[in-house]
Amino acid sequence: MPGQDLRVGIIGVGVMGGDHADRLARRIGGARLVAVADPDEARARALAARHDGVRAVADPLALVADEEVDAVIVASPGFVHEEQVLACIAHSKPTLCEKPLTMDSASSLRVVEAERDAGRPLVQVGFMRRFDPQYAELRQLLASGRLGRTLLLHNTHRNKSVPNADFRSEMIVRDSLVHEVDVARFMFGEEIVAIQVLSPAPTSHALDGVVDPQVAVFTMAGGGLVTNEVFVNCQVGYEVRCEAVAERGSAIAGRPQTGLYATSVGESAGAPGSWGGAVDPDYTVRFGLAYDREVQAWVDAARRGEVVGATSWDGFAATAVCTAGMQSLATGERVAVDLADREVVLGVGARAAQPIP
Amino acid sequence: MPGQDLRVGIIGVGVMGGDHADRLARRIGGARLVAVADPDEARARALAARHDGVRAVADPLALVADEEVDAVIVASPGFVHEEQVLACIAHSKPTLCEKPLTMDSASSLRVVEAERDAGRPLVQVGFMRRFDPQYAELRQLLASGRLGRTLLLHNTHRNKSVPNADFRSEMIVRDSLVHEVDVARFMFGEEIVAIQVLSPAPTSHALDGVVDPQVAVFTMAGGGLVTNEVFVNCQVGYEVRCEAVAERGSAIAGRPQTGLYATSVGESAGAPGSWGGAVDPDYTVRFGLAYDREVQAWVDAARRGEVVGATSWDGFAATAVCTAGMQSLATGERVAVDLADREVVLGVGARAAQPIP
Amino acid sequence: MPGQDLRVGIIGVGVMGGDHADRLARRIGGARLVAVADPDEARARALAARHDGVRAVADPLALVADEEVDAVIVASPGFVHEEQVLACIAHSKPTLCEKPLTMDSASSLRVVEAERDAGRPLVQVGFMRRFDPQYAELRQLLASGRLGRTLLLHNTHRNKSVPNADFRSEMIVRDSLVHEVDVARFMFGEEIVAIQVLSPAPTSHALDGVVDPQVAVFTMAGGGLVTNEVFVNCQVGYEVRCEAVAERGSAIAGRPQTGLYATSVGESAGAPGSWGGAVDPDYTVRFGLAYDREVQAWVDAARRGEVVGATSWDGFAATAVCTAGMQSLATGERVAVDLADREVVLGVGARAAQPIP
Amino acid sequence: MPGQDLRVGIIGVGVMGGDHADRLARRIGGARLVAVADPDEARARALAARHDGVRAVADPLALVADEEVDAVIVASPGFVHEEQVLACIAHSKPTLCEKPLTMDSASSLRVVEAERDAGRPLVQVGFMRRFDPQYAELRQLLASGRLGRTLLLHNTHRNKSVPNADFRSEMIVRDSLVHEVDVARFMFGEEIVAIQVLSPAPTSHALDGVVDPQVAVFTMAGGGLVTNEVFVNCQVGYEVRCEAVAERGSAIAGRPQTGLYATSVGESAGAPGSWGGAVDPDYTVRFGLAYDREVQAWVDAARRGEVVGATSWDGFAATAVCTAGMQSLATGERVAVDLADREVVLGVGARAAQPIP
Repeated sequence: MPGQDLRVGIIGVGVMGGDHADRLARRIGGARLVAVADPDEARARALAARHDGVRAVADPLALVADEEVDAVIVASPGFVHEEQVLACIAHSKPTLCEKPLTMDSASSLRVVEAERDAGRPLVQVGFMRRFDPQYAELRQLLASGRLGRTLLLHNTHRNKSVPNADFRSEMIVRDSLVHEVDVARFMFGEEIVAIQVLSPAPTSHALDGVVDPQVAVFTMAGGGLVTNEVFVNCQVGYEVRCEAVAERGSAIAGRPQTGLYATSVGESAGAPGSWGGAVDPDYTVRFGLAYDREVQAWVDAARRGEVVGATSWDGFAATAVCTAGMQSLATGERVAVDLADREVVLGVGARAAQPIP
Repeated sequence: MPGQDLRVGIIGVGVMGGDHADRLARRIGGARLVAVADPDEARARALAARHDGVRAVADPLALVADEEVDAVIVASPGFVHEEQVLACIAHSKPTLCEKPLTMDSASSLRVVEAERDAGRPLVQVGFMRRFDPQYAELRQLLASGRLGRTLLLHNTHRNKSVPNADFRSEMIVRDSLVHEVDVARFMFGEEIVAIQVLSPAPTSHALDGVVDPQVAVFTMAGGGLVTNEVFVNCQVGYEVRCEAVAERGSAIAGRPQTGLYATSVGESAGAPGSWGGAVDPDYTVRFGLAYDREVQAWVDAARRGEVVGATSWDGFAATAVCTAGMQSLATGERVAVDLADREVVLGVGARAAQPIP
Repeated sequence: MPGQDLRVGIIGVGVMGGDHADRLARRIGGARLVAVADPDEARARALAARHDGVRAVADPLALVADEEVDAVIVASPGFVHEEQVLACIAHSKPTLCEKPLTMDSASSLRVVEAERDAGRPLVQVGFMRRFDPQYAELRQLLASGRLGRTLLLHNTHRNKSVPNADFRSEMIVRDSLVHEVDVARFMFGEEIVAIQVLSPAPTSHALDGVVDPQVAVFTMAGGGLVTNEVFVNCQVGYEVRCEAVAERGSAIAGRPQTGLYATSVGESAGAPGSWGGAVDPDYTVRFGLAYDREVQAWVDAARRGEVVGATSWDGFAATAVCTAGMQSLATGERVAVDLADREVVLGVGARAAQPIP
Repeated sequence: MPGQDLRVGIIGVGVMGGDHADRLARRIGGARLVAVADPDEARARALAARHDGVRAVADPLALVADEEVDAVIVASPGFVHEEQVLACIAHSKPTLCEKPLTMDSASSLRVVEAERDAGRPLVQVGFMRRFDPQYAELRQLLASGRLGRTLLLHNTHRNKSVPNADFRSEMIVRDSLVHEVDVARFMFGEEIVAIQVLSPAPTSHALDGVVDPQVAVFTMAGGGLVTNEVFVNCQVGYEVRCEAVAERGSAIAGRPQTGLYATSVGESAGAPGSWGGAVDPDYTVRFGLAYDREVQAWVDAARRGEVVGATSWDGFAATAVCTAGMQSLATGERVAVDLADREVVLGVGARAAQPIP
């Protein structure tokens, strides 16, 4: 019966909101988009008009309260997340909140506590890489113990370029490195206890005064180390890799050699021809499938009353690490992460999200 | 409005039918499964019971005629395809028919003519590789002309093993090589005019008397050549590749290096360790995404009144080439393909399916 | 003592002769170049002058007879090989003869018989691929039996372009395909009993009337099949590959991904950047190391009184297969190879060359 | 004339000395081994006996002084290098000294000064990676400026296991990381000004108390950063990689995918089969060709009165960085490298070694 489809509302009609609307309309089973909300009501109407049977509302909180909305995707700017996600929890509506969960640790912790008090899992944070086939397989391999204990990760995160003139050094930590923070926690299954952000001489393609690339080192609770390169003006394309080093082997997720392989005439290096392929242009291409799988898994889990993927705690922990990272960026020194005790906040044996199916 | 979802019925509840049912329920937008049909009514009921709101019927033709079924997926055995697809055409219902279209050229041609007489495109044949990202990208690259004219293809088609004891030499042509037939026609955008099937000394893992592997050579209408290895008991896994050689470059779709890359301890070769990854176990893993995209594209096109992917003509042509291939298998000699004139059958300027979006 | 160095004379001072002279002077141990011979005495003198202590002579047979020459490299045009190699045998001098051994089967057989009658192994034919690390490792893997019996080979042989206007279709068989002939015999450890050469519509980069690319199929004595692409005007670079398919696995020698791997800005395909590397420009780069190892192995074996690598019989067999191949090229039909019986010619149990160390 | 061969003496008859002896005898042109020296005279005699015309002497300094020895390879333990290399300089004999140049900065500086005072280049330090085709090509690519300025390096250095029970944490810095030190200086063409060595929780395969793996970060004079993983008990094999990140692209030397590529039955992961290849077992296999090229280049340069590759200054600088590294290992803090001013020591415009041909 169609009534059993999950009726989804989306808050925020920017790039991510629009992508999720298309996704729900075209590639996701068991759900349908029924409403979109944005303070910019004209844009909300334009998005609604692209899909059959979708209403546009100006007030996000009205969308949350709407009885015909079963579940909510929060794709608005980070600084309004706290209010909106708390509203979703208050209305007991399953929520997929794009990262960051909120703008600082204290507010993220309030979300964690509100969900705890609600007594059932409601919030998934949009760390989509956990749903990328290769990242998921890497996590599985490490968790299987086949390679022994995990010792190191080396993460690479390269964007072709950043879109606007306001992209400062701190944003590289908060908006780009944050993905590596979640990857490190996901792969090790442990918290990050300290972070050091180093500032190499920057590329000439970065804005004046912006530290790009950055090299960050995480210390894991169990003593493992994670090295991270984040380079948001690399000019080439979107390249994201994670190499895990364990006691009896290593593995890499995200090598770019996954598309078509070609040889062709004419390469500048003096060689007559070249072999290779194209680097993905951006994250929507590289992680398009991961987003599809993430939203499908969220829909499926919501219909079962569960949460999969990254939890509100994961969102809180990522925020706490990035807060320490921004301090370290200023000094180059190692900064301890100020993290609440998970067992104190959530209780002993508080479960994590269901494993990704 | 839910009424706008395409209401789909599936005929046949074997592996493919069951997979498509899950797909429609879990990963496809804009459609919902409403009925399944199979002469084995108990199996049909079991499948229906796994999904909400799905009816089971015993008579496939009743499903086709059902007013609450907008479109049909034919996943029954090949020998009943003709009757079922003709019924779908008679009821003007968009149809996705698994390969083979029918069992011989004459019956396939009858389907082509019935669809022609119906006056609108209704039939898509399930050559899913056209929807595999790499095969699709290769087609695009060749069609773009960037590498000049296409000269050769080299196709590799390896299965770990074939499931049942009845898999004879002819079935390798009809059920396995048929995919390479469609690939060759798709990549060149031309008909195959002759085929030669060569019989190497067989592997000891094949049944007695079965020619496995086989090497087939296609001659294209424009003079291009295609070499094909089909090996259905290769023991390793499912490995499917297409290398195109053009005047100014070459390209390969389907290299297996697309999953996780790992190094690990312990390899039999005397070397202390190995690098590499896992070969896909079977076609459901290798082409799972292609099937998703195929069915989504079929749903989207059906809602627009169009057909994408392989047409009934493509299904007919593939059947005609395999018929000639089975003759060649018996003698090792080159056999001309007995193909009707497309323009005579369909009229000058008859359009192919819409390009894959 | 220096006297124990093998004193080598080179006949022919073209590209190959010059390369071998440099090789002996700069990268080979246990040997030194003492003389070069060429009817074009001026060129011979020019080459000699580039190296200390090397004499130039006009008459190749005088070089062969020279008491201060212990061993001879024959790098002259193919049509003078017979006379020169027979002279080397008559003087009991270890000889490394570039391919082809001679221009036709009858003359090659005369060389085989002369060496047989001399009573000791003297002649190595310059099939350098046997000394390429990857081709050698592939041979070892197949011979080890780890993958079971070898069933198929797929060979790829691409040159950027051919240097002169005289390069006709037959020369593609005799000068390029001949390497694949030796590879097939080397990998299977069997004779080729039939060959079929197919003529696809040619590239527009070939001379008028030249069949390029060509597709050749070999039938091995044990029933295995070998498909070969030879494409001498592929425009891209030099790309040579051999994929072996066996009962429990497959293996590829010669993938081009062995050099530097780079990502960089600017690729024509609309993608922002590309990953990959450079294709080798020609055979001197691709097989430079193989030539070094070949000549070093020849020197080492000559000092021990042995022959390694391809024997005169291998040279004869390759010539016989190419002779049949040129007939097949004219008709497209399969042609049986007219090969003498090895045991009749050489005696039962005649040993092959020593295995490559 | 044979007299023009470079007559080489080797000091030290361990693994490296023995390898170099074989190399000179079998794969190097223009030189011959005439003498070996080792305090363990029996071992020296055993090595000499394996080669024609080679004398064994007990006293290394006698070998240096020997008039029939033109040039010397120092392959003795590091703590006797200073005396032996100074003797070579005193006798004006071209010297190839295995790393480390000496055991501490002060003694290395004395060698630099002695060579300076000798007035002509005599000493090459055995950093063989500069002669590895891929490392050399990477250096060339970076120096060409095609990718813009170099920003970062990521080095990976993995050994299967270390041979003896004395391999302590400091030795990982001095004997393994030292290669990455030279790589960083070679690739950037700059000095290292600071080093930080981090200690992750160690693998259970390391000896008790040994920090393995280690993560080291170098700061280059121009502000570039280098991250290094050194892991000497990785269990898998020998894997050494260098990824350079520049303003408009990146490149990797040393990916392991350069050997045979195979698919085969039977992998532990539940997958039916695997694709990939073998990891090199150790440095003698991985860098065998680099050693050959290094020694050949040293011989060629010695005959011209030049030095190529790493100079005594490079050896001194590497020692100074490792000294700082061992301090950092103890504390985890960043330590500045105490390096003399090159222009003060060598004079303005002192030339580096000749570029590698």
